[in-house]
Amino acid sequence: MRAVQVVGYHENLRMTEVPEPEVTGPWDVVVKIGGAGVCRTDIHILEGQWAEKSGVTLPYTIGHENAGWVHAVGSAVTNVAEGDKVIVHPLITCGLCAACRAGDDVHCVSSAFPGIDTHGGYAEYLKTSARSVVHIDDSLEPADVAALADAGLTAYHAAAKAARRLRPGDRCVVIGAGGLGHIGIQVLKALTAAELIVVDRNPDAVKLAVSIGADHGVVAEGRQVEEVLDLTGGAGAEVVLDFVGEGGATRDGVGMLRRAGDYHVVGYGENIDVPTIDIISTEINFIGNLVGSYTDLCELMVLAAQGKVRLHTTKYPLERFQDAIDDLDAGRIRGRAILTP
Amino acid sequence: MRAVQVVGYHENLRMTEVPEPEVTGPWDVVVKIGGAGVCRTDIHILEGQWAEKSGVTLPYTIGHENAGWVHAVGSAVTNVAEGDKVIVHPLITCGLCAACRAGDDVHCVSSAFPGIDTHGGYAEYLKTSARSVVHIDDSLEPADVAALADAGLTAYHAAAKAARRLRPGDRCVVIGAGGLGHIGIQVLKALTAAELIVVDRNPDAVKLAVSIGADHGVVAEGRQVEEVLDLTGGAGAEVVLDFVGEGGATRDGVGMLRRAGDYHVVGYGENIDVPTIDIISTEINFIGNLVGSYTDLCELMVLAAQGKVRLHTTKYPLERFQDAIDDLDAGRIRGRAILTP
Amino acid sequence: MRAVQVVGYHENLRMTEVPEPEVTGPWDVVVKIGGAGVCRTDIHILEGQWAEKSGVTLPYTIGHENAGWVHAVGSAVTNVAEGDKVIVHPLITCGLCAACRAGDDVHCVSSAFPGIDTHGGYAEYLKTSARSVVHIDDSLEPADVAALADAGLTAYHAAAKAARRLRPGDRCVVIGAGGLGHIGIQVLKALTAAELIVVDRNPDAVKLAVSIGADHGVVAEGRQVEEVLDLTGGAGAEVVLDFVGEGGATRDGVGMLRRAGDYHVVGYGENIDVPTIDIISTEINFIGNLVGSYTDLCELMVLAAQGKVRLHTTKYPLERFQDAIDDLDAGRIRGRAILTP
Amino acid sequence: MRAVQVVGYHENLRMTEVPEPEVTGPWDVVVKIGGAGVCRTDIHILEGQWAEKSGVTLPYTIGHENAGWVHAVGSAVTNVAEGDKVIVHPLITCGLCAACRAGDDVHCVSSAFPGIDTHGGYAEYLKTSARSVVHIDDSLEPADVAALADAGLTAYHAAAKAARRLRPGDRCVVIGAGGLGHIGIQVLKALTAAELIVVDRNPDAVKLAVSIGADHGVVAEGRQVEEVLDLTGGAGAEVVLDFVGEGGATRDGVGMLRRAGDYHVVGYGENIDVPTIDIISTEINFIGNLVGSYTDLCELMVLAAQGKVRLHTTKYPLERFQDAIDDLDAGRIRGRAILTP
Repeated sequence: MRAVQVVGYHENLRMTEVPEPEVTGPWDVVVKIGGAGVCRTDIHILEGQWAEKSGVTLPYTIGHENAGWVHAVGSAVTNVAEGDKVIVHPLITCGLCAACRAGDDVHCVSSAFPGIDTHGGYAEYLKTSARSVVHIDDSLEPADVAALADAGLTAYHAAAKAARRLRPGDRCVVIGAGGLGHIGIQVLKALTAAELIVVDRNPDAVKLAVSIGADHGVVAEGRQVEEVLDLTGGAGAEVVLDFVGEGGATRDGVGMLRRAGDYHVVGYGENIDVPTIDIISTEINFIGNLVGSYTDLCELMVLAAQGKVRLHTTKYPLERFQDAIDDLDAGRIRGRAILTP
Repeated sequence: MRAVQVVGYHENLRMTEVPEPEVTGPWDVVVKIGGAGVCRTDIHILEGQWAEKSGVTLPYTIGHENAGWVHAVGSAVTNVAEGDKVIVHPLITCGLCAACRAGDDVHCVSSAFPGIDTHGGYAEYLKTSARSVVHIDDSLEPADVAALADAGLTAYHAAAKAARRLRPGDRCVVIGAGGLGHIGIQVLKALTAAELIVVDRNPDAVKLAVSIGADHGVVAEGRQVEEVLDLTGGAGAEVVLDFVGEGGATRDGVGMLRRAGDYHVVGYGENIDVPTIDIISTEINFIGNLVGSYTDLCELMVLAAQGKVRLHTTKYPLERFQDAIDDLDAGRIRGRAILTP
Repeated sequence: MRAVQVVGYHENLRMTEVPEPEVTGPWDVVVKIGGAGVCRTDIHILEGQWAEKSGVTLPYTIGHENAGWVHAVGSAVTNVAEGDKVIVHPLITCGLCAACRAGDDVHCVSSAFPGIDTHGGYAEYLKTSARSVVHIDDSLEPADVAALADAGLTAYHAAAKAARRLRPGDRCVVIGAGGLGHIGIQVLKALTAAELIVVDRNPDAVKLAVSIGADHGVVAEGRQVEEVLDLTGGAGAEVVLDFVGEGGATRDGVGMLRRAGDYHVVGYGENIDVPTIDIISTEINFIGNLVGSYTDLCELMVLAAQGKVRLHTTKYPLERFQDAIDDLDAGRIRGRAILTP
Repeated sequence: MRAVQVVGYHENLRMTEVPEPEVTGPWDVVVKIGGAGVCRTDIHILEGQWAEKSGVTLPYTIGHENAGWVHAVGSAVTNVAEGDKVIVHPLITCGLCAACRAGDDVHCVSSAFPGIDTHGGYAEYLKTSARSVVHIDDSLEPADVAALADAGLTAYHAAAKAARRLRPGDRCVVIGAGGLGHIGIQVLKALTAAELIVVDRNPDAVKLAVSIGADHGVVAEGRQVEEVLDLTGGAGAEVVLDFVGEGGATRDGVGMLRRAGDYHVVGYGENIDVPTIDIISTEINFIGNLVGSYTDLCELMVLAAQGKVRLHTTKYPLERFQDAIDDLDAGRIRGRAILTP
């Protein structure tokens, strides 16, 4: 089959012919790819940023946001059958460790991450596990939801966790209305009645955020902290969801947070650097957020089927992978780029 | 009556004769002091560290850890009567704001703090509110529990919050086995079956911690992070309760924390300074902790009455306040110094 | 002032001239009534059903769903001022007992209930407490929201509690689409993405429920349990909210409940009568629901101001109280009857 | 191997020679039995009470409380290895359904129950799954903990769930100080500081309960409700854990419950039969409790290893199964009867 592989760091990806993956273990599932999301992480991989962390051996097939149809299943697989339309959770987890048994499979002690540390989905077929495939509704197409498998799932996880404490009358600031923030806003609208204040440097992103349900939009031009305080009666917001995490976002975000508030860290880059005296005297919390669990992905697919979470996509045939990468790198993609068979 | 007052910063406290406080409002309660805790914060006040923050006008009576007997009550007070033995919550709260109505009175939007921003308890009588007095058990004496009113209450609040997620088999690291840590350990033993690992620079403090129930003691001599990792199978602890917050404690503490763990900030001094990438890739949380609520103080008094929380005290008659301050400053107090009538 | 009073059981209400209530205690608030809801409980009071339970002395002024403008306040009142537009929580609570201090004021150990055990709001003025008045948004009128003070608040409380466990993909059955159910459906839509199945004997009520957001409507004509099971893949719903509680509703409702599901009891009349073996083998829960807390009422007023909860009302001038009662008794009211000044 | 089988209802069990179970699937684990608990359910099985419900085909091997050593493992098993000392969770669960993925494996949609609907542990070897085996501490012996696998696990599950809401100062009534109650009391002591009131008809059971930590013992001789109310200041207990569920226990228990209290149903026999008006006016909850999850069993094994939960056992060699059954039926067993190899 055709697969797009990393053949060297600081080199372009290369399309090549490789053997189709085959079922070898009892829980294996081979998925025929219907859509594979092109993610900024893919560019970081090519830059070598993940080389040491992942320990992957080159060449390997990239692509960690995948959806498609079940092509073959192992002997013990009972939850999906050939032909089923599925989205693929980004991790292959063991199912036996304490974290997996408690439903917190993201903290599995022995997981694999196709597209990062083993073969991924920029290809015709992907090998994953019965524990990683989630049925999608008849009304959804793999290529339309693929990008929800990782970026969207992270946004869902953080927004749904934040929503658990938000009550009517509470305010939630969303920093960053890009790919993840866009999903986060839709999830918050679906799960809470809290007032949403969206902050972004890009006026168009702010406009789009308001058009999908944000109650207030703030363009970050220097006065964003004051503007949020004005919008919250001077007290700040009960929750800040920070999808940026760099360029001064965290200092701003802490300034927007109310006493006893929760600061959700999702985006990354800079440090959280806050005096402990401030943390205790206002009794604020910093909440880390990784990608969502299998159960989170099931829930997100429900919201997608209900039309409550939508994602704009630009599709490229698999062989045009380089155009997709180039367009993403140049900021020419609105929404997400998706490779299709 | 006699009262010990701050008459100037960087000056000694002075005992003087002042009018007894009187009931003027419907919710007022005047307490005859049975014990007033001498706290390091009192020394910081004299150093002027709180001058700007509190905005208090000198001279005023110091002392924010108080217990005694109800002496007089306002017209609307129904929960206590003259002669009742009580401990005094450190804050006077409004009872009407959203925080107070939700039981989260520590975040009251218009509270007063006797001993910090108004007259406190280094005196014969203290004026507080019906909302601040908690009955204590017949078996307890005001002078024995006074120091639980603020320091102990803070430790209780953090330990009880941490306990809500601790399950049998989980590990909890307590950094700092001094005044607060000592209470925290006893609270954790009363509320959870988690394994307790106590870390302190002082070998005697570690020994004491083990004698009151810590499962493991670690003397912080440079290898404390490795030792904790060894004790937790390399994975770190589900919860770290940091009663120190300075001198490198937070870097150590984060190194002792397990994936998806909670880092409770209680002590303060340095900054929490952690890369956002580390926060999200391990999905850890930093939880702020202020003093406990009125309800927390009620619960702590139950543990005290059950003998599950005990505090060693050294008592000084009120007129020997200077000795108490000097002994505290020189590190000569074991447990807590208490002024008595 | 004019007031409508209970002068005897099994007699009509009578309008009479009584003295205006005056502020006597520090937390008293006198409200000029803008709207007073007419509730089926008022009819039950006249039938003597509450005589023994309430212990009220006749004559007294009826009416427990009130909203209006602050007319006078006691010396200690800081949260409202003369002229403020407010809705009135049905209970006057003490603010000092353990339940009040924990934010659970509905379980106050010494509360009063105007309209039930003391003078209520079928009058020009009502005396209540600073702890019972909630500001309403400029866009809302007292007469439009008065009926949310008790019936609506009960529905909010139950629906918001149920919502805390509902995740996308979960199903929630609402039994009874009358006054409370109508509010409950709107609250669930505002707070969750769960699929709502509404069951009622009245086809018009079912139609209305679907028009305000229910995903499925089931007319209870004998096959309602089977229909709900069909709609839930045979497994039943994660939550049943029973606003009926009589006429066989509870047996039906338990039949519609999924393993590990929550059955919320709100309506009343018959017994919950279920074998313990069934409770343990399916591990289901029965959750009691009383009226909501002060905090619940604040949250409900946010949803009302956002337009997410609306209530159809029919207004009657105070002197036409008998018409309102008669129309209610005869089933001629759509939505709720409100007495206005 | 030797196995004790049900050969007919209303007939005695019979020991016979059967083939050893073998690993056939990738997740299979064969355990060499070190101890098999003899449970009242086993007698009920012989009486035919489970015949229809389980649908099991006779003859089959009985015994659902098992512990021992891993004898053989399937190709995909990574969590245990030959020779490991383990206790066996009573259910074999699928690991793929929504309940399993959320950590709530007890509600697995396709589980098996060895000893009830397939071959159990009154034998030399038992076939179970990698998802059902929990390591036990070196200090524990299989025969000593086997009875914790089902009866103890149910008690743990209910007590740990109840403990999550119990705060210092709360009261918890335990109805029934027999096998399950005995474990429940120890678990509550380990996990909470709540005051425990134990009620039982048998004065010796009450005495034993007090000796292992109950704060108050009440012999149920007719005045048990009044006695509990006296012990709780007339208000009742925040939680009632009912391990009896028959003979009037539920009516008594509801009478002992405080407003807003939780009634945990664990024992069974009679109906919960309570007016909905009482449920809503006091806002009480009835909480169902089934056996605990895999994670619960891991936690219970921690408490056992810490010596916080102990169980008195009487051991019988496997061939004396009939004596064990007879002694249990005649009430001659103190603690639990265990069959050993």
